[in-house]
Amino acid sequence: MMYQIRDNRLWIDGIAAETLAQKYGTPLMVVSESQIRSQIQTLRDQFLNRYDNVRAAYAGKAFLPIAMCKVIEEEGLCLDVVSGGELFTALKAGFPVDRIEFNGNNKSLDELKMAVENGVGRIIIDGVDELTLIEEACRQSGKRVEALLRISPGVDSHTHQFITTGNVDSKFGIPLHGGIFEEAFLKINASEHIDLLGFHFHIGSQLHDNEAYLQAVGVLLQIIEDMHGKYGFRTSEINIGGGFGVRYTDEDDVKPYSYFLDPIMEEIEEWSARTGIPRPTVVIEPGRSIVANAGATLYRVGAIKEIPGIRKYVSVDGGMTDNIRTAMYDSRYESHVDTDAESEEMVTICGKCCESGDILIHDAIVTTPKRGDLLTIFSTGAYCLPMASNYNKIPMLPVVFVKEGKDRLVVRRQTFTELLERELL
Amino acid sequence: MMYQIRDNRLWIDGIAAETLAQKYGTPLMVVSESQIRSQIQTLRDQFLNRYDNVRAAYAGKAFLPIAMCKVIEEEGLCLDVVSGGELFTALKAGFPVDRIEFNGNNKSLDELKMAVENGVGRIIIDGVDELTLIEEACRQSGKRVEALLRISPGVDSHTHQFITTGNVDSKFGIPLHGGIFEEAFLKINASEHIDLLGFHFHIGSQLHDNEAYLQAVGVLLQIIEDMHGKYGFRTSEINIGGGFGVRYTDEDDVKPYSYFLDPIMEEIEEWSARTGIPRPTVVIEPGRSIVANAGATLYRVGAIKEIPGIRKYVSVDGGMTDNIRTAMYDSRYESHVDTDAESEEMVTICGKCCESGDILIHDAIVTTPKRGDLLTIFSTGAYCLPMASNYNKIPMLPVVFVKEGKDRLVVRRQTFTELLERELL
Repeated sequence: MMYQIRDNRLWIDGIAAETLAQKYGTPLMVVSESQIRSQIQTLRDQFLNRYDNVRAAYAGKAFLPIAMCKVIEEEGLCLDVVSGGELFTALKAGFPVDRIEFNGNNKSLDELKMAVENGVGRIIIDGVDELTLIEEACRQSGKRVEALLRISPGVDSHTHQFITTGNVDSKFGIPLHGGIFEEAFLKINASEHIDLLGFHFHIGSQLHDNEAYLQAVGVLLQIIEDMHGKYGFRTSEINIGGGFGVRYTDEDDVKPYSYFLDPIMEEIEEWSARTGIPRPTVVIEPGRSIVANAGATLYRVGAIKEIPGIRKYVSVDGGMTDNIRTAMYDSRYESHVDTDAESEEMVTICGKCCESGDILIHDAIVTTPKRGDLLTIFSTGAYCLPMASNYNKIPMLPVVFVKEGKDRLVVRRQTFTELLERELL
Repeated sequence: MMYQIRDNRLWIDGIAAETLAQKYGTPLMVVSESQIRSQIQTLRDQFLNRYDNVRAAYAGKAFLPIAMCKVIEEEGLCLDVVSGGELFTALKAGFPVDRIEFNGNNKSLDELKMAVENGVGRIIIDGVDELTLIEEACRQSGKRVEALLRISPGVDSHTHQFITTGNVDSKFGIPLHGGIFEEAFLKINASEHIDLLGFHFHIGSQLHDNEAYLQAVGVLLQIIEDMHGKYGFRTSEINIGGGFGVRYTDEDDVKPYSYFLDPIMEEIEEWSARTGIPRPTVVIEPGRSIVANAGATLYRVGAIKEIPGIRKYVSVDGGMTDNIRTAMYDSRYESHVDTDAESEEMVTICGKCCESGDILIHDAIVTTPKRGDLLTIFSTGAYCLPMASNYNKIPMLPVVFVKEGKDRLVVRRQTFTELLERELL
């Protein structure tokens, strides 16, 4: 097991958290490489090895140090990037470019040129007005691209509005009502620069229920059938996005990959048998579900403030700069304090930013912390590091990978001098 | 006037926005130095030159490139810093250290040593358990410090909960109920390393009403009177924070500094006359009000997506990476599009991040934009740059200062290579 508590001290993947904190300082992000690989093995067991003609592209936006690119490469997954910067990272990591898929609602010509010239495996076209840019990028580099067209299936995934992307009121994909879709499809399919392989959708993140997902698949299959019937279009690939929910606290009702994917694959197989249309390759884009639970953030407890009759604030040496998710999405986390104390109490764990909203956990139940104790917040592997800021000019924290008792620094701590490196006088 | 529209093209401080966009690229933050200096002149007219024994410390957390430190220094203000990184920046800028005040709910020993060794003008002590650290820092450097003690006056400033800091349920300051305050005061006042000059409070940000502010001043004056009566303590300085509201859109009812400060000074003067206690120096900490309206962010319009009957999304080449305030606080902004179009329409201006919440303005009324148009969002001078992230590995944007027709780059754009500079293999 990744986490062990021995004498109330936390061990991560065979190393005492306190040892890591002393070696690298705090705040520190610790990522269990074993856990990431084990989660990908679960994905293989439940999906990749269970079905023919399926693929998974890790959604790099969740967490993408170069070391993560390497793990994803070694595990044989593809990689979903959403910007020139993510593509640059993948290329620097030596990630096989034909296994890269390029998403995004507003790709620039420069980004598309970078993608086409380097030969990325797929471009997910987000709207018809991206076509001109892709064609220009292809003309300039003398290359063709394989692409999917992203649709907005118009289902509501019932998650936080910020991370619901498949609703019809979305900046992503092409809406299916109003006659826009078919015109876009025909235009893109007619392009001499593009091999249109099929369609993409993504309905949202942190899903705990399969209803909207199945609905969206139904919508997509109808599209495939219609385009086949009307234009003889053969859909060879579909990408049904990610969004598989993870456990942040005990209140999260987490489902295995198979909960989502078995019924989806069954729906697709049945549809294929019924319509006689060959079942396309099915691609998924898990991000959070691969890495969220593998990460933990180690903090040192600082100021403690008891407001009589109201609340006890326990400040740590990081905060919304390294994890903005509580302030931004009202996210919930669990924590552990390395301490000899025996009593438990309810406290609010806050950061050191000069802002009241800089809270990490509201009403955490912890073993009574004191200044200097090591406090760990779990499941911070996804969307914490990528959204980190230098608010209050707090340097960005380092990242350590741990695996079976061994640790290695993969991202070092930012220095004060680096905070000012882009300043001119 | 800082902004002019000529033939539907925006000019900022005497330079066409399009000229700046072409010279420096987009997204680009443009800050009018003239506007900052003029706003500080307003502060002088309405407060600093109007009263004896008053001072203003610019709250650097709002926006603190080195170039800004220089402007603040030249204008004769003090500087409020909240971390080692901000202090480091001020020192690198050559800001007079005795004009620096150091705030923060969880200062580390390292930060306090840096502050004490360099001789910062004031330390705002946030709680009694900071005392041990300050004493240790003083012992190690053989220096004394001048300090204020921050109280939590327990009034509700009726602003967004994230930026309300003076409420009794706050991580900042010492609560006045429950008998904690007096013990802390006596302990700190007895320290041989600290010259306790008086008290500090800050009730919240973006205030549009003076009621809570006046209440908090009343609470503070009672404290001063009590400590004078009981212990003969002479309060020589008080810091009443900042939080003066600014105009983001026409719906904001903005009040001048004098609206807040005249009644406060009157309350303090009357109290002094009534009690016979000499009126202490009064310090304020304006941040947002100095810089918010001086900044604008220039974007290039990219993908435009019309969802029939629902909404039109206009994507720009930045987003929540350079301005998280809409997603985070539901902040509202106004914008302008440089275009030959004549019709106006309502659109949603969104960024290029792979996240539905990446919105800059909901329901903006703009002159119909098309791909390639320059789109400017106003009043982004405060809390946008400091909270910027590399989410989706989007490089951080550059900052240009403009003044009477002249521009100078003060922070250059981050490169892809710099995104990876802390990565180890």
